[in-house]
Amino acid sequence: MFHKATKLILVTENFVAAKVCKLILQAGAKGYTLVPAGGKGQHHFHAISSETTLIDAFANIKVEVVCLDRALAEQIATTVMEEYLHDFPGIIYLEEVAVVRPDRF
Amino acid sequence: MFHKATKLILVTENFVAAKVCKLILQAGAKGYTLVPAGGKGQHHFHAISSETTLIDAFANIKVEVVCLDRALAEQIATTVMEEYLHDFPGIIYLEEVAVVRPDRF
Amino acid sequence: MFHKATKLILVTENFVAAKVCKLILQAGAKGYTLVPAGGKGQHHFHAISSETTLIDAFANIKVEVVCLDRALAEQIATTVMEEYLHDFPGIIYLEEVAVVRPDRF
Repeated sequence: MFHKATKLILVTENFVAAKVCKLILQAGAKGYTLVPAGGKGQHHFHAISSETTLIDAFANIKVEVVCLDRALAEQIATTVMEEYLHDFPGIIYLEEVAVVRPDRF
Repeated sequence: MFHKATKLILVTENFVAAKVCKLILQAGAKGYTLVPAGGKGQHHFHAISSETTLIDAFANIKVEVVCLDRALAEQIATTVMEEYLHDFPGIIYLEEVAVVRPDRF
Repeated sequence: MFHKATKLILVTENFVAAKVCKLILQAGAKGYTLVPAGGKGQHHFHAISSETTLIDAFANIKVEVVCLDRALAEQIATTVMEEYLHDFPGIIYLEEVAVVRPDRF
């Protein structure tokens, strides 16, 4: 019932995420999940300067794409890196997962 | 100090998630984490039609359950699939993790 | 192009998360991602008492830190556990990931 798959995770600015969502579907992935995100780092996320601003800081977006084919996840990651993340802040990484209902991915 | 465990991830509509949260506790899991989510796909998530609506689109919920016993995570996934996701949109998958303080899971 | 790394995930109360974010940077990690979270469990998260309150329940924070060095992730997890989670609610776990652009982590 469970099928191996690869999840690509991207955290970046909203307007970059919007472009990446289009790229994801064009690349052949069947969907994606979006989650509000904030943070801090070399990727220049919205800085968290004090405890009181912590919960107001979700000015970025986390994009998640589950691909049955790891090669597709790697290809999307490579394209996103080359086309968007050279010039804009963001982090991108892959995780191994096991999906139910593989026809949805 | 670190103990192998399995995380079940479900992304679905709010009213389905509420039913699933009850099922999770009834099945014997000790807790769950909820995160606001949006997205697009065959799972009929809230469609993101333009860049301007991207950040307003968190109309779904991501539910995460960490189980020390992989069999429990698989059982919950199977039950959720059979009882809810045949008729409603949603994706479900498992990830391997390593927990601290295993008595909490 | 892809480099093994370890992601630490912490879900806890906002004021604990703020202290942990400082600790993460002091420990040598280069950044972190924050996501709004809610839930239920022995960790005393905001209780979800009815379906109608489900979407209003994101009163906690999920903190994610990707470390190239698993030892650093384990050290942060151990310190957070000893310094904060003995007295406060929260869950903490690790996941194996593969990052692009390793100099950012």
